Amino acid sequence: MNQNPDARVGGSVRVVGTGLLGASIGLGLTRRGVDVILSDASRASLDLAVDYGAGRPPHEGDDPALIVVAVPPDATASVVAAELNAYPRATVTDVASVKVAPLSELEALGAEHGSPDLARYIGSHPLAGRERGGAISARADLFVGRPWVVCPRPGVARDRVGLVEHLALDLDAAPVALTAEAHDAAVALVSHAPQVVSSLMAKRLDGAPASALALAGQGVRDVTRIASSDPELWVQILSANAPAVAEILRAFRDDLDDVLRALGDVEAPGARRTIAQELAAGNAGVAGLPGKHGQDRRFASVVVMVDDRPGELGRLFTELGEIGVNIEDLRLEHSPGAQIGLAEIAVLPETKTRTVDDLSARGWRIAG
Amino acid sequence: MNQNPDARVGGSVRVVGTGLLGASIGLGLTRRGVDVILSDASRASLDLAVDYGAGRPPHEGDDPALIVVAVPPDATASVVAAELNAYPRATVTDVASVKVAPLSELEALGAEHGSPDLARYIGSHPLAGRERGGAISARADLFVGRPWVVCPRPGVARDRVGLVEHLALDLDAAPVALTAEAHDAAVALVSHAPQVVSSLMAKRLDGAPASALALAGQGVRDVTRIASSDPELWVQILSANAPAVAEILRAFRDDLDDVLRALGDVEAPGARRTIAQELAAGNAGVAGLPGKHGQDRRFASVVVMVDDRPGELGRLFTELGEIGVNIEDLRLEHSPGAQIGLAEIAVLPETKTRTVDDLSARGWRIAG
Repeated sequence: MNQNPDARVGGSVRVVGTGLLGASIGLGLTRRGVDVILSDASRASLDLAVDYGAGRPPHEGDDPALIVVAVPPDATASVVAAELNAYPRATVTDVASVKVAPLSELEALGAEHGSPDLARYIGSHPLAGRERGGAISARADLFVGRPWVVCPRPGVARDRVGLVEHLALDLDAAPVALTAEAHDAAVALVSHAPQVVSSLMAKRLDGAPASALALAGQGVRDVTRIASSDPELWVQILSANAPAVAEILRAFRDDLDDVLRALGDVEAPGARRTIAQELAAGNAGVAGLPGKHGQDRRFASVVVMVDDRPGELGRLFTELGEIGVNIEDLRLEHSPGAQIGLAEIAVLPETKTRTVDDLSARGWRIAG
Repeated sequence: MNQNPDARVGGSVRVVGTGLLGASIGLGLTRRGVDVILSDASRASLDLAVDYGAGRPPHEGDDPALIVVAVPPDATASVVAAELNAYPRATVTDVASVKVAPLSELEALGAEHGSPDLARYIGSHPLAGRERGGAISARADLFVGRPWVVCPRPGVARDRVGLVEHLALDLDAAPVALTAEAHDAAVALVSHAPQVVSSLMAKRLDGAPASALALAGQGVRDVTRIASSDPELWVQILSANAPAVAEILRAFRDDLDDVLRALGDVEAPGARRTIAQELAAGNAGVAGLPGKHGQDRRFASVVVMVDDRPGELGRLFTELGEIGVNIEDLRLEHSPGAQIGLAEIAVLPETKTRTVDDLSARGWRIAG
């Protein structure tokens, strides 16, 4: 019987590691009334996460149903093993960004590590994060709408897998079943290789003349945004998934060599065609991404021109409230110094016509 | 005497080429009351831009003071030459993304092209654009707050350079003087090389399993966003700036080879250090970009928790207006289904404390 009426997971949940992911999990579960036990090798980190409302410190006799190991990839296997041994009834999962390496490491652990009971271990990985780490950046809604990959090994009990899926659902994430190998290949493509590419492009900017950097627009900013990620964490991730990442980067490098050859003599026969084909292949690749950035297809967009003076946005949103339209998302384009801002409002598609008509009737200028 | 009381440029402006840039220039100048003459090799494109309000068709006897050539890079030099010859009094500029190649081409043109009068030509380049091209995507505010590089050749009359600077200022852009060579090196770094890197990364996504693409988060989306750019245009840009682009991409390729070697044997001495150093250099590079995306340093950020019901944002902004705080930028983080949204408001740093205090006193929960 579930002690947590607002949650799917029953019983207490122990979270080991109170960084960004661990603290966010604690916040989200606590909000659902789950008893969250926090543990961290650093007393200061633990205290911060407790103060932050992510859970409570451990007590003698804690008997968690589920343990979530949220420590850096290099430490994951040994911490999982220790938790399996310390809590002989608990299901143990981890949230590391790689899944094959910790599992292989666990399988290699022998009697000197107490021969951990891997029938109770199910690796998982929530696809969520921020450039900023630590409990201080934690958010209860970090996982909302994000995939949470669950990698059960063959033979693991179905109800234990279900417990990890319930964890994901309680945090409003979407559980996705993949093998550890399929997971690692997928994240090599959509996360690890892009990290390397972004970092190496950003490195080119280091030491560049200010007059050149002053010309930077949104394009290079977007390409290099994730280059601000933590090197220490990413060395662990890339090392743990090296073969899959290298396979993608080698193909990238081969294409880059083709482009470099073409750029070396752009008048040579076929040179321009080579470049065009690479660019066109990039078009095709980005078109395949589901739900493209900035154009969430679930919503319709209304762009309203707003005078740049205090209270104008307030008046707009008050009137949207009067009209009875809820704002699903919002982006303000405002050029400092300009007299006009553009408020791009995402609304449910069925309310768009009414929103535009009612706002126009109230004198708002609709830009698109 | 200036015929255009709301504009710095005096007289008529002829815009040749009514794609995204040409039509946006026409819209912006028309809004300032300037007589804009549009010309395009395609009658359909011209008609669309005229319908769009970007200017009027040419008339017999037009005598433009300034001509803006906004055609693809490959066509720029020949169109500039033709305009110089057709309008013997006009100052002619172009807006191509490369500056050395069109100038060299123009200088190489001889008597058979009417020996164009290059003393009236000043190349320029507004750093503005969108992934979507064509007049249909044009916006009068496309250039607001963006740099507009002006590349005067030695000996060009100061008042002609001033006319091109006035064009930039009339479109609310910031004129920046650079040599053609410095311009091309700068855009190779902040625009052209990132385009290649983004496209080659996006190519990796083409044909990937849907289960892998479903795990894509904001990181890979940002890295590959500009990969949706027009290949035909970009082949011209990259070819015209090939040596500068190749220099950056070669350094990128050499670093990538180092990373690949390290990934090939992550346990080898120094392998992890190599990877960490590349990532740290990326940190440094992205930190050097002025006014980083999403964390504009000119402003302080206040994060307010907002209940997800109609009118709540209105109440927030109304109260900000009552407090007398102007919102410089705004981002709404709203997870569909969640009961709470986070409104991240950028305010002038000196008003942050008062904003937080006054909002808290009114019962708003401040998240950061």
